Amino acid sequence: MNPDIRWDHDRESRTGIPEVVFGPGKTIEHLTRLFSEGEGLRFATRLSPDQMDALAKLAIVDRVSRTAVRAPKAPKELPPVGILTAGTGDIPVASEARATLEAMGQPARTFFDVGVAGLHRLQAILPELRACPVLIVCAGMEGALPSVVAGLVDAPLVAVPTSVGAGVSEGGHVALMSMLSSCSPGIAVVNIDNGFGAACMAVKMMNRWVRR
Amino acid sequence: MNPDIRWDHDRESRTGIPEVVFGPGKTIEHLTRLFSEGEGLRFATRLSPDQMDALAKLAIVDRVSRTAVRAPKAPKELPPVGILTAGTGDIPVASEARATLEAMGQPARTFFDVGVAGLHRLQAILPELRACPVLIVCAGMEGALPSVVAGLVDAPLVAVPTSVGAGVSEGGHVALMSMLSSCSPGIAVVNIDNGFGAACMAVKMMNRWVRR
Amino acid sequence: MNPDIRWDHDRESRTGIPEVVFGPGKTIEHLTRLFSEGEGLRFATRLSPDQMDALAKLAIVDRVSRTAVRAPKAPKELPPVGILTAGTGDIPVASEARATLEAMGQPARTFFDVGVAGLHRLQAILPELRACPVLIVCAGMEGALPSVVAGLVDAPLVAVPTSVGAGVSEGGHVALMSMLSSCSPGIAVVNIDNGFGAACMAVKMMNRWVRR
Amino acid sequence: MNPDIRWDHDRESRTGIPEVVFGPGKTIEHLTRLFSEGEGLRFATRLSPDQMDALAKLAIVDRVSRTAVRAPKAPKELPPVGILTAGTGDIPVASEARATLEAMGQPARTFFDVGVAGLHRLQAILPELRACPVLIVCAGMEGALPSVVAGLVDAPLVAVPTSVGAGVSEGGHVALMSMLSSCSPGIAVVNIDNGFGAACMAVKMMNRWVRR
Amino acid sequence: MNPDIRWDHDRESRTGIPEVVFGPGKTIEHLTRLFSEGEGLRFATRLSPDQMDALAKLAIVDRVSRTAVRAPKAPKELPPVGILTAGTGDIPVASEARATLEAMGQPARTFFDVGVAGLHRLQAILPELRACPVLIVCAGMEGALPSVVAGLVDAPLVAVPTSVGAGVSEGGHVALMSMLSSCSPGIAVVNIDNGFGAACMAVKMMNRWVRR
Amino acid sequence: MNPDIRWDHDRESRTGIPEVVFGPGKTIEHLTRLFSEGEGLRFATRLSPDQMDALAKLAIVDRVSRTAVRAPKAPKELPPVGILTAGTGDIPVASEARATLEAMGQPARTFFDVGVAGLHRLQAILPELRACPVLIVCAGMEGALPSVVAGLVDAPLVAVPTSVGAGVSEGGHVALMSMLSSCSPGIAVVNIDNGFGAACMAVKMMNRWVRR
Amino acid sequence: MNPDIRWDHDRESRTGIPEVVFGPGKTIEHLTRLFSEGEGLRFATRLSPDQMDALAKLAIVDRVSRTAVRAPKAPKELPPVGILTAGTGDIPVASEARATLEAMGQPARTFFDVGVAGLHRLQAILPELRACPVLIVCAGMEGALPSVVAGLVDAPLVAVPTSVGAGVSEGGHVALMSMLSSCSPGIAVVNIDNGFGAACMAVKMMNRWVRR
Amino acid sequence: MNPDIRWDHDRESRTGIPEVVFGPGKTIEHLTRLFSEGEGLRFATRLSPDQMDALAKLAIVDRVSRTAVRAPKAPKELPPVGILTAGTGDIPVASEARATLEAMGQPARTFFDVGVAGLHRLQAILPELRACPVLIVCAGMEGALPSVVAGLVDAPLVAVPTSVGAGVSEGGHVALMSMLSSCSPGIAVVNIDNGFGAACMAVKMMNRWVRR
Repeated sequence: MNPDIRWDHDRESRTGIPEVVFGPGKTIEHLTRLFSEGEGLRFATRLSPDQMDALAKLAIVDRVSRTAVRAPKAPKELPPVGILTAGTGDIPVASEARATLEAMGQPARTFFDVGVAGLHRLQAILPELRACPVLIVCAGMEGALPSVVAGLVDAPLVAVPTSVGAGVSEGGHVALMSMLSSCSPGIAVVNIDNGFGAACMAVKMMNRWVRR
Repeated sequence: MNPDIRWDHDRESRTGIPEVVFGPGKTIEHLTRLFSEGEGLRFATRLSPDQMDALAKLAIVDRVSRTAVRAPKAPKELPPVGILTAGTGDIPVASEARATLEAMGQPARTFFDVGVAGLHRLQAILPELRACPVLIVCAGMEGALPSVVAGLVDAPLVAVPTSVGAGVSEGGHVALMSMLSSCSPGIAVVNIDNGFGAACMAVKMMNRWVRR
Repeated sequence: MNPDIRWDHDRESRTGIPEVVFGPGKTIEHLTRLFSEGEGLRFATRLSPDQMDALAKLAIVDRVSRTAVRAPKAPKELPPVGILTAGTGDIPVASEARATLEAMGQPARTFFDVGVAGLHRLQAILPELRACPVLIVCAGMEGALPSVVAGLVDAPLVAVPTSVGAGVSEGGHVALMSMLSSCSPGIAVVNIDNGFGAACMAVKMMNRWVRR
Repeated sequence: MNPDIRWDHDRESRTGIPEVVFGPGKTIEHLTRLFSEGEGLRFATRLSPDQMDALAKLAIVDRVSRTAVRAPKAPKELPPVGILTAGTGDIPVASEARATLEAMGQPARTFFDVGVAGLHRLQAILPELRACPVLIVCAGMEGALPSVVAGLVDAPLVAVPTSVGAGVSEGGHVALMSMLSSCSPGIAVVNIDNGFGAACMAVKMMNRWVRR
Repeated sequence: MNPDIRWDHDRESRTGIPEVVFGPGKTIEHLTRLFSEGEGLRFATRLSPDQMDALAKLAIVDRVSRTAVRAPKAPKELPPVGILTAGTGDIPVASEARATLEAMGQPARTFFDVGVAGLHRLQAILPELRACPVLIVCAGMEGALPSVVAGLVDAPLVAVPTSVGAGVSEGGHVALMSMLSSCSPGIAVVNIDNGFGAACMAVKMMNRWVRR
Repeated sequence: MNPDIRWDHDRESRTGIPEVVFGPGKTIEHLTRLFSEGEGLRFATRLSPDQMDALAKLAIVDRVSRTAVRAPKAPKELPPVGILTAGTGDIPVASEARATLEAMGQPARTFFDVGVAGLHRLQAILPELRACPVLIVCAGMEGALPSVVAGLVDAPLVAVPTSVGAGVSEGGHVALMSMLSSCSPGIAVVNIDNGFGAACMAVKMMNRWVRR
Repeated sequence: MNPDIRWDHDRESRTGIPEVVFGPGKTIEHLTRLFSEGEGLRFATRLSPDQMDALAKLAIVDRVSRTAVRAPKAPKELPPVGILTAGTGDIPVASEARATLEAMGQPARTFFDVGVAGLHRLQAILPELRACPVLIVCAGMEGALPSVVAGLVDAPLVAVPTSVGAGVSEGGHVALMSMLSSCSPGIAVVNIDNGFGAACMAVKMMNRWVRR
Repeated sequence: MNPDIRWDHDRESRTGIPEVVFGPGKTIEHLTRLFSEGEGLRFATRLSPDQMDALAKLAIVDRVSRTAVRAPKAPKELPPVGILTAGTGDIPVASEARATLEAMGQPARTFFDVGVAGLHRLQAILPELRACPVLIVCAGMEGALPSVVAGLVDAPLVAVPTSVGAGVSEGGHVALMSMLSSCSPGIAVVNIDNGFGAACMAVKMMNRWVRR
């Protein structure tokens, strides 16, 4: 490997999460070497179209979540983590969460387009949500969905603000601040568009569930 | 009157809203003169405890809404404007809206503590909400209530962010930004804690209803 | 339809506003399917040039407002909503408001380039403004026009800050904050550049006017 | 109860977290009634000195965490949630988390003053941290402790930014933003000084652990 | 004098503005020494009640503008600088501007409470405004008055945002940003509540008028 | 003209500044019509390369200041307004100020690259600066030049923050805030990069000088 | 000691800076115990009046810098670190820097009230500044002094923004941003009002000078 | 040279740092003239690809640091300044620091990818870090590395926040604020991505080391 890079081989045994490749700023050459060398899981996020093209022959590339995975872990016998989105614009972020979970062997189940402007859509899926041990809820704009969901179910909820929005909500800061301010207890929040981070939080919870 | 003050006698005929006294910075002497002179409606908002004490003998003072009114208009034969709050902390702001409506002769009806953390409370009052020609919705923290309400009823909705909150939501900016970002159409927003402004918007709507 | 999309068929009967398509992030394929399927009103906003090209054969496309409409509602027998702009740069936002009103059958009337740097332009149109039951006022930069208009007329006023500006006013935040701070009562505000949202607020007001 | 208050009796069965009293804005009369009526757990947070004085005869009051509890749940047979602070100034926030956990029957264990300016303090407690199924990490100023801890242990970590700081870090926004930006995966964040919220997230995780 | 203070005796001859005492942080002892020593003009701004009490025997103290002056310059034979306020809350800032002008011998004329919510008040004073060689315009809230005035008169206009406001406009940042964004050319802006700074700008203009 | 445009023919007689064309958002067709019709001064700012190409045959185009002028006014017999820049990156903004002054017949004199990192450059030009009746000072980054200049000369100073900078000073907000905070009295500030606005302020001052 | 406190006894040998007591939030009891136990240097900063009263019998208390020191180190044979302030309001911050240096045995020399509004004051002390191996420059408001000084001398400069200011510069953020944006190379910046931090940076530089 | 440019020939003798060319905004013609004229060191930073192409025949161009140097100074006999990065994305900023040091004859040593998510990487290089008289630490995201390093070594530390990040940390403001808030004394901070500025601070320190 590049002498400038200090790969943290030991990260999974210490933290339960293997080292993952963050795409931005990586050269094509560097990325392809990372996916050619060694063996076992390689997972990369936030890939550009060029990076995805280059990795397509070395890994399973998902254009919606902008991820690539080599040698994903076998699915574990665990109940699925639920992933919700308020709108269709949040699907890429939710897909990054799903891809991360699945790369690490954690089953996932998605529920898209169930935002608060039409509550009946959420009420229709409540029984299924209640079966999930953890929920990841992605929303942009005013970011109200986590508050409503956390008032209806008893699973811990990881809220992901997305950059979907216009005017003051462009970029996701309003959704982020809204989620941090929620009047419903039992919510914790990750960075804007950070589907990966939400999935890692869920994996750490489920790892402990197994290890108990 | 003080030569420095130019009272806008003509405001009601031009705009449908009489001139109203904004308490902060007014001296006791100035306020008592305003409530002693002339005749007809006098209405003051954002009064301090001292100002309320001084006006108590000249007007009806409401300690919750921090308003004083002399000679309120007779109630009009109109359906009531609905005023909702997410929590009990929003009641002072909602009360300023109610006091403003009632000073101007517009009936009002209040629905307090119906925030989104327990949706059943909102669902229980839906038929009553649907009977209101305009809704004023007050919420602090993540300010999610207007989005949910506007997705359920067909009245125009004036959203009032309140300064109720803690940490990032302290002061009301998160609620304000959240309401401006709402995914539910048919919402317009006023300044933080501005129950008075929301009521004036409602009065202008109802004036037109009458004049039609 | 795409299983990921949960179309809210019931929205118009609940809220008086039909579901509308928000262009950003929608694929051409998805958009053309939405405008090919079913019947009755279809209305889309914030379309890109490519999206407008694709919809041109299925709908009436307006390049200034960046909207497309299929089967607009018949014009109702109602007085027109007035739409003002401070400058010529605000015309696209005003046009989105007009296109929305007209798609929903509400007549509209526009008054462009009447900003406060030359007040005589506003004074010349006052009689016409006073005939409108609702006003939508679009302004960028310092956003002063709504304050001046609301001090002169008795219609409720929906203020739309626009992203027109330079230096500190670039992006519309100054106009937004200015409108929320207005010293003239009877103003409510929508998100930056949200001509659509202002029109929906006006439609909800006029729906009630009819239903009364 | 006050007709303005709609107590959410059903919250615990829906969400696993009972309704909790948020002190600010509550009158002494209202608070004492809440702690006198009914039976079973009552828990209040963010109490003022006056409120604590008034509740002292009705509940166990903790002056550091500014909480009061009546009839806390019996401790469950579960491993303790670990609570860390970077400095001594963060102890009130950590104490709110501990009081919340203990009111709900969840054991807790605290590790105070283990900030990154002296890493040896953290390294000394690593074995004990690794035994905790969830960690709550409280830090103000630059908020670096969660990143370092999450790189060393495999428990899910709830980060609590505190308002401890001076100059640019006064009020906790820098710690909040820092924690959201962490380079270590497996962290989720709650609002500034929100020890209560972090504990609720941990309780929801541990509830599921039990129910599995 | 205190050896820590380096009095800039030469400032007036270099810049046309004598050194002025900024009250905050000065001890009573220090202030009284400054007003006891030497001779000629001494002028202090932003004084606290205690500081004003202490200086009352050494200088002319004005409680509205919070200034003190010893040996003001004789009034010059120059046309008056006009000072406007939008509301009555802006009068203290306008008074600081007037006190500064008069201390330096420049005549001033004030026009209070002529804000844009009632334009007729401004139109009534236009002839008098047109006679002023410079205008200082003080406004809080949305700060729209300078834009309207600069579109009506040909004098250079110094805009002073004031901290008068509520909600988003509290503290004066909205008024400041609004004034910087003005669509009317011929406006320059000073810091929030800086009546002193506006007056110094006007004095420098009028000094040059004389010296021409 | 386009019926949507209301040209303010009367602006120069009211305010001393003729109506000027702001380039952004104007179509080529609209611009060329404005420069083809009528007679006398036409002046446009913030032109794009395409707009400049289109106007090159109808007006004098300056690529540095991005302005075009038709029929500039004859130079008046007045001392020159001085224009300073801190660095070479500020020259486009300074050139917009110069082009504006010259279009309106006011002589100008420029002093570029005299920033505070090498004070000897400023000291070398002091006698020339002292001969100018007004100074326009353009600076980006920390925007310190106006403070130093205003402490050395007696002319009124219009400060122009520029968007020159990197990191925190990118976009000009730091320079703007710094200039508003200046410890030197006799400074007023315009919007970021607003050389045009600074020149209009100077023209209004010099108009009065003439009319006196 | 309190079991909650983990005193970092080893800090000085690791980093060259002994552990120092940050006053805010410490109880009187805790502080007096810290200054009673053990031996050798004890140094506390940001003390409240009550804390200073309590320590007055155990340590040398300085009311201007709000510090207390027990057993300061003997002065080292090193050239003095120079400490400058722009105004007299910055003296408390400069005094904290001086007290910190002197507690650690590093000589200091102060130069107060040499701000850029009167450059002659700075020029008068240039030879003395050039003799200092490190300079600490404290300034509020627009924070321009470090840029000017760093362009005149060759010592490394630690800039300390102070919270001295009004309007937009209140609290010190403008001075901070200005210093970070300086056009003069050779400046590094510490937190607002952090005289202690600047002194620690200087001590670390001088420690290395000695150890070389 | 261009008469608009006032080259500060004397800067190195005054300040110890020669004048350096800041690339943005410079024309190719201007840059090539600067590198063709005169003799001795020429150093340019923040060059665009086009600028680097043009200078490639006149200077040593480094594409990673985006710098060009002509006639760098001979390496001095001094211990190396240490340069650390948290991640690989910070390498361009670190390279600008190294290129600046080496242009001025100061040896440097780099340690890349030693961020806090894997502390063992940092611990492995501690002996080498302790040999450096000054450290430059570059980090984006939460910017925690300087706090940890300053708690372990006794060299003065110049922290460089980088714009590496996503969501709230995009652009580097979170890293900047975090570094300013550090709980470890002995850190001073430069502007975002300002590797050049950090190196100049280090050069000034080492110049004094030599001159002592």
